[in-house]
Amino acid sequence: DFHHPHQLLDGIEGFSLEITGEAESLEQILVDCRDTLKYGVKTGHPRFFNQLSSGLDIISLAADWLTSTANTNMFTYEIAPVFTLMEDVVIRRMCSIIGWEDGEGIFSPGGSINNLYAVIMARHYVMPEVKYDGMRGFPELVMFQSKHILQSKLAGKVPFYVTATAGTTVIGAFDKIPEISGICKKYGVWLHVDAAWGGAVMMSQKHRHLVTGIELADSVTWNPHKMMGVVLQCSALLTRHKVLVTAVMYDVINLLPIVMSCLVLSRHSDVRNTSQGILESCNEMNADYLFQQDKHYDVTYDTGDKTIQCGRHVDVFKLWLAWRAKGDAGFEKHVDRCIELSRYLVRKIRKTRGFELVNPEPEYANVCFWYFPPCIRNLSDETIKHEKLNKVAPLIKSRMMENGTIMIGYQPLGSKVNFFRNIVSNPAVDYDDIDFIITEIERLGRDI
Amino acid sequence: DFHHPHQLLDGIEGFSLEITGEAESLEQILVDCRDTLKYGVKTGHPRFFNQLSSGLDIISLAADWLTSTANTNMFTYEIAPVFTLMEDVVIRRMCSIIGWEDGEGIFSPGGSINNLYAVIMARHYVMPEVKYDGMRGFPELVMFQSKHILQSKLAGKVPFYVTATAGTTVIGAFDKIPEISGICKKYGVWLHVDAAWGGAVMMSQKHRHLVTGIELADSVTWNPHKMMGVVLQCSALLTRHKVLVTAVMYDVINLLPIVMSCLVLSRHSDVRNTSQGILESCNEMNADYLFQQDKHYDVTYDTGDKTIQCGRHVDVFKLWLAWRAKGDAGFEKHVDRCIELSRYLVRKIRKTRGFELVNPEPEYANVCFWYFPPCIRNLSDETIKHEKLNKVAPLIKSRMMENGTIMIGYQPLGSKVNFFRNIVSNPAVDYDDIDFIITEIERLGRDI
Ligand SMILES: Cc1ncc(COP(=O)(O)O)c(C=O)c1O
Ligand SMILES: Cc1ncc(COP(=O)(O)O)c(C=O)c1O
Repeated sequence: DFHHPHQLLDGIEGFSLEITGEAESLEQILVDCRDTLKYGVKTGHPRFFNQLSSGLDIISLAADWLTSTANTNMFTYEIAPVFTLMEDVVIRRMCSIIGWEDGEGIFSPGGSINNLYAVIMARHYVMPEVKYDGMRGFPELVMFQSKHILQSKLAGKVPFYVTATAGTTVIGAFDKIPEISGICKKYGVWLHVDAAWGGAVMMSQKHRHLVTGIELADSVTWNPHKMMGVVLQCSALLTRHKVLVTAVMYDVINLLPIVMSCLVLSRHSDVRNTSQGILESCNEMNADYLFQQDKHYDVTYDTGDKTIQCGRHVDVFKLWLAWRAKGDAGFEKHVDRCIELSRYLVRKIRKTRGFELVNPEPEYANVCFWYFPPCIRNLSDETIKHEKLNKVAPLIKSRMMENGTIMIGYQPLGSKVNFFRNIVSNPAVDYDDIDFIITEIERLGRDI
Repeated sequence: DFHHPHQLLDGIEGFSLEITGEAESLEQILVDCRDTLKYGVKTGHPRFFNQLSSGLDIISLAADWLTSTANTNMFTYEIAPVFTLMEDVVIRRMCSIIGWEDGEGIFSPGGSINNLYAVIMARHYVMPEVKYDGMRGFPELVMFQSKHILQSKLAGKVPFYVTATAGTTVIGAFDKIPEISGICKKYGVWLHVDAAWGGAVMMSQKHRHLVTGIELADSVTWNPHKMMGVVLQCSALLTRHKVLVTAVMYDVINLLPIVMSCLVLSRHSDVRNTSQGILESCNEMNADYLFQQDKHYDVTYDTGDKTIQCGRHVDVFKLWLAWRAKGDAGFEKHVDRCIELSRYLVRKIRKTRGFELVNPEPEYANVCFWYFPPCIRNLSDETIKHEKLNKVAPLIKSRMMENGTIMIGYQPLGSKVNFFRNIVSNPAVDYDDIDFIITEIERLGRDI
């Protein structure tokens, strides 16, 4: 039931978004609630293939309701005793699934913020002084993304961070971690694996090979709110550096003489305090007006100093409860099923005239493809054909939204013109929903 | 019902936090839910005075439940048509309450992240090139906090950001905005007002004077999840710079020749695109694989490019619904009542032997005070007295938690030893709860 912004703003069927400042009656508030859901998009619908996060897991939903009801903050054990411990338990579990014997981590509002945390940590690892003295006076730091590693010249700059992706957003591709890790080790560089989307394959015996070597990473972002079906928001940052290891200085000094100048022992007593976790060492402000150290309980369970946030939403209970309810096997089944359904779609696309895969062998639950309407199939001029093809997905998408029958995302990528990206991450999807993708795109696009 | 971390981790009365990997029965899951709430802290209890966020507003709770049920993301109108428009409506309303005719803003996961957004925006305002070229080659930037403004020498550095606080975390103090704004105007510096805690006084005719001049700010952080009682998380960043005004360059060039070198017209076409909002200009990545521009609806309502986040939780509906239900007057009544109850506590403290206010005239809903147990009241050596006093609040606090009757925070501040900070932000608090603060502290601390 699609409406344009101006239609909704004008007030449709009496549904007004305005805040007049007057108090409305309870009846009106109930109507508001109903309308808000009514005009929203049903992300839990089995024909919503638009985003990496979809579905509506009832257990994690119930946990999120209880979380709202508990209405507390993660920063201290004092006001969130159960939730801070749950976070600790879940983080340990996730670390051990990655393959680390020890480690620590944090839940933050999303993968992007967690990736930011990883960058700050990596910088702190190589140049802890920066936290106190700023970037000036230190060599320029450079970070790399998987595919650019081997191409770059360093010329007086310090490589400090490489990010590999386990499950890219569009294609669902997995970087080869052991290869990248080898280069990182050689140059003493922090390796972060962004497994926001792909991390879930660690739950599957069948598909875990996609992230072979992930235990070699220094840090990992893993979003249970994507493939693991936990309701939004639920995203973890994990690191194997439970404490700052002083040996790093030695390693780096040997392998990277270029940064020697800045690796003087810190003037700041806490920088190389080896009993402190790296997240805390990196992000703490020592604000004892916020996080007192003279409390009567073991304050190592207070998490406030581990983040750049002050208040932090409780995101762990959703995952904890879902895990208790489903067990490892529940997540495994879910991942396997989503990938199996995606493979089924791949087979259908290969067999159906007018459809073409963007990458011939999708590894994960992303299936990227073009639909060529009959009118452009036989065009011989490739330039014109691709210009026209570029407009097909946006047009079909607009028809999808106006028809309200299905939602699939599209985007261009590099030199590739607009294509559909179909995601299966919802346990409610079944084979006939996959069949429907093909027939519905044909129905909506045939006449273009 | 306080338990130490090791007690809860060991499993109390059969409540285990462990994730074994096995799936538990539905009965066990229900027991888990019950226990999670049972061993948690009741932040909605009228004798929980520990944090700035307290209470449990039923309307915003209901809205948060529906938000979880809708399980969507704020980044595009496409998947959150109602919520993105609601955000627009609420942001406009908040801007107009500040006193701006126009403006824009965003809800982010908390006040700290919003303050970070303000810093990035201010830097972008004065040195848009930094986004593309990094900090090197540009003059060093300096930011100031209210009380340090006049003391600082600039010596080759560029002041670019001043933050004033409207309602400090501990004392609840309000900086004089017009005075600070005058200095900022003189030096062409961005003024941010952190009204995370104090912003709510704008809803009160009686107390609005505390933030006189707030409309002079360039940006404001305002957390409805604190004094406005909306359940966590709900925090807004607002700016009066709806679009990047090119005149700024002129201003800054005239008043601050020191930064002239970097204010060359940008090589990057979009930096001075005056039709684009400042948040977007500052934070966008132009990632068309995420946020397509060729959609069939008005994509100016897509918010994904306004933040450094990718996914963004829906935090606005809670506030929108509460606002519809209570009206402006509902918030006003709430703020007035919390301050009135705090004044009542102030009067009681003044009259009660053994109690002493930290700041004699609290302006807001923070009341900071010491309790002197009889044994230290008559000590003549001030050093010993304060050493002993420093241990009183932590000890009484531990007894509070073990007794489970009341929770009040404490902290030291500058040269002031540990004192209690009592916060009233919960509509369920009544006069007898305030009376209880005094009698309970006396009961728990008398024998020290
Ligand atoms: C004045 C002030 N600013 C910012 C914050 C941070 O807000 P949040 O906890 O939402 O990050 C607080 C929190 O108490 C505060 O008191
Ligand atoms: C590979 C990857 N990393 C990070 C993110 C960002 O995660 P979030 O939306 O939780 O910020 C995404 C989101 O789609 C992603 O696909």
